[in-house]
Amino acid sequence: MMDPIIEMTQIGQRARQAARHLSRVSGAAKNRALTAMAEGLLRSMDDLKRENAKDLDGGRERGLSTAMLDRLHLTDARIQAMAEGIFQVVALEDPVGEVVGMKPRPNGLMVGRMRVPLGVIGIIYESRPNVTADAAALAVKSGNAVILRGGSEALNSNRAIVKVLVEGLKEATLPVEAVQFVNTTDRAAVGALLRLDEYVDVIIPRGGKGLIEKVIADSRIPVIKHLDGICHTYIDQDADLDMAITLTLNGKMQRTGVCNATETLLVHAAMASACLPILGQKLKEAGCLMRCCPETLKHLAPFGGVAATAEDWDTEYLDAILSIKVVASMEEAMDHIETHGSQHTETIVTQDHARAMRFLREVDSSSVMVNASTRFSDGFEYGLGAEMGISTDKLHVRGPVGLEGLTTLKYIVLGTGQTRG
Amino acid sequence: MMDPIIEMTQIGQRARQAARHLSRVSGAAKNRALTAMAEGLLRSMDDLKRENAKDLDGGRERGLSTAMLDRLHLTDARIQAMAEGIFQVVALEDPVGEVVGMKPRPNGLMVGRMRVPLGVIGIIYESRPNVTADAAALAVKSGNAVILRGGSEALNSNRAIVKVLVEGLKEATLPVEAVQFVNTTDRAAVGALLRLDEYVDVIIPRGGKGLIEKVIADSRIPVIKHLDGICHTYIDQDADLDMAITLTLNGKMQRTGVCNATETLLVHAAMASACLPILGQKLKEAGCLMRCCPETLKHLAPFGGVAATAEDWDTEYLDAILSIKVVASMEEAMDHIETHGSQHTETIVTQDHARAMRFLREVDSSSVMVNASTRFSDGFEYGLGAEMGISTDKLHVRGPVGLEGLTTLKYIVLGTGQTRG
Repeated sequence: MMDPIIEMTQIGQRARQAARHLSRVSGAAKNRALTAMAEGLLRSMDDLKRENAKDLDGGRERGLSTAMLDRLHLTDARIQAMAEGIFQVVALEDPVGEVVGMKPRPNGLMVGRMRVPLGVIGIIYESRPNVTADAAALAVKSGNAVILRGGSEALNSNRAIVKVLVEGLKEATLPVEAVQFVNTTDRAAVGALLRLDEYVDVIIPRGGKGLIEKVIADSRIPVIKHLDGICHTYIDQDADLDMAITLTLNGKMQRTGVCNATETLLVHAAMASACLPILGQKLKEAGCLMRCCPETLKHLAPFGGVAATAEDWDTEYLDAILSIKVVASMEEAMDHIETHGSQHTETIVTQDHARAMRFLREVDSSSVMVNASTRFSDGFEYGLGAEMGISTDKLHVRGPVGLEGLTTLKYIVLGTGQTRG
Repeated sequence: MMDPIIEMTQIGQRARQAARHLSRVSGAAKNRALTAMAEGLLRSMDDLKRENAKDLDGGRERGLSTAMLDRLHLTDARIQAMAEGIFQVVALEDPVGEVVGMKPRPNGLMVGRMRVPLGVIGIIYESRPNVTADAAALAVKSGNAVILRGGSEALNSNRAIVKVLVEGLKEATLPVEAVQFVNTTDRAAVGALLRLDEYVDVIIPRGGKGLIEKVIADSRIPVIKHLDGICHTYIDQDADLDMAITLTLNGKMQRTGVCNATETLLVHAAMASACLPILGQKLKEAGCLMRCCPETLKHLAPFGGVAATAEDWDTEYLDAILSIKVVASMEEAMDHIETHGSQHTETIVTQDHARAMRFLREVDSSSVMVNASTRFSDGFEYGLGAEMGISTDKLHVRGPVGLEGLTTLKYIVLGTGQTRG
């Protein structure tokens, strides 16, 4: 293989060229390419499964866990789901070219903003090969060129998927460099990609916390990411009891290994006696472990609750474990969230309008909810159609990142010869 | 002085606390504070001029240029202008709390976004003391706490201004830590500020290219900035001749030391003979030097035009100098802008609608104009009321940065007990 810096620079230059072209093609042309990509995946099932088998064999040799091997595995149903995901992106509105806020100035200038692609997006991800198709489809639909760097364990699968995607670009006569794959397991390639600030506009890491921390530390390019999902459900003093229990169970247990699962429950002291014994019973039945503050422990010891340690409040379990704390007020709940939260998603269960509005306004998270399960924090559930990930950053995009998050607004000015005096 | 890291950390912690408070105060309270600040500046003219005189004396001793000393100088008129700037920010709409895009999902959830402050803003700037008041007013109005680090040459002036601003916060019973000043000339303080990623959400550098490059290189915190303003005026093949000449002269000569002045003129070959001799005469009369491509030189040598070197196309003159190139097509003009531009502001002079629209859409700059002077690229001219600076970045904010650029949108979700299935 070539020197990774030289190779990545060439990939970057080609991507920049392709991005310029892609920024001006019609939505119809982009949809033709995406449709050809999805149809290509459906036609190539046997090829994809054959290449995937090589990765599975390699993974077994390298001792990957059953869970990891399962995530890596491409079945007919999963390839169909990948294609279906692309068809859904086809159905979304093209965000590029929208003009907003066009207003006349006193001198007759019209000033507004136009939505345009970011340019070149670098995506660094692990394990699941479907990210390859999802990310490429979102990038192309939003007019961006994309550089894909998948995990080494999925190299053969990803390469085969990208081959199909590139055929789709060709069928629609779009530049094939709009979707490029870093076809090497050399780690130096990632370092080189993160320094391509001349050609790459944004880096999106998708994967474990270790990967994301490394990308943040090394990147010269702005990064869109979330690190942790320590999401809180807060049961307010006059919450509806049934709703409080239902939302807690759903937030924690509907799926535990995901970033928007509830990790900490905060219960107003006035609700503790009514709420905690019922919850303790139901959480126990559901197989959920409970890490409790001293006050909570009084109610939950009979259901297997144990004393929480200081670390519990800062831990994203990604498992059937819930930390639970009784608070004296909504202010104490908000202070706890401010200190221990990860600015991902928090929800209040309340019947009081004023407190609902205050929680909405004051809690500084990418998603803040009233009377809804934290599990809804997701681009598809929010109506974005699909998502590239979730951002807990404050700049550019906060919350699920859909097509709009892959674009920017530039100012446009229409004059009739005005000069500045 | 204390250890700069410890001191900056304490400043950061106090700012974070103040930001939480400020995020929830009413627009009326923020306006009371700003009004008290502006009135305080008008009442404190003598104090401010006395402190400013110390900086001027120090500057003379250190051999600052006349231009630098003039920028540093606080006169009655300049203090009045500072106060007037704050009154203008009072008149702007409060951006915080606006809710946009609230739509029902099929399950009855209402999902939308709420505009909220970024949190804590660090501003690093040079020379002109009015930036202290402008930046603090914009930050407070948008609900953010601000940490101000001015240049050492203006230390006494800035300290005196901040004292008045803090009195305004007190009068409105807002937290005084909402506006903090780094009261030292120790350069280590800047380094420490740039590493306060735990407490500071964004850094805005304002000053020369050297300052901005240093901030980008050292900051662990996202930076909103522009580096260069190599702005282009392109005269299209069928431009109105008078308009082309007027816009070129205004873009280049109305004020030369500013980032939105035209630095390069591109002229379609079909317009060269009609346009260049008239322009050459007028630019010469206005005292503007001309650096010409070979084709341009044929027309402009009689007016003192000289051959451009390769560097000219990449130079921000900030002076009465214009580089001029004849191009064979709009495509060549756009290629030149792509290669040599700084993504700040470009304008096309044309009477052709299709080419105007294509230029608007395809030129990848923070402001793209049709038939208007590049000098209009400015927050006040765009109707933002005031600006914190101009961003040539693509993420978060692109173009003049007003109050909206100092905020972010978080998702809010209103439910009635919905769970995810």
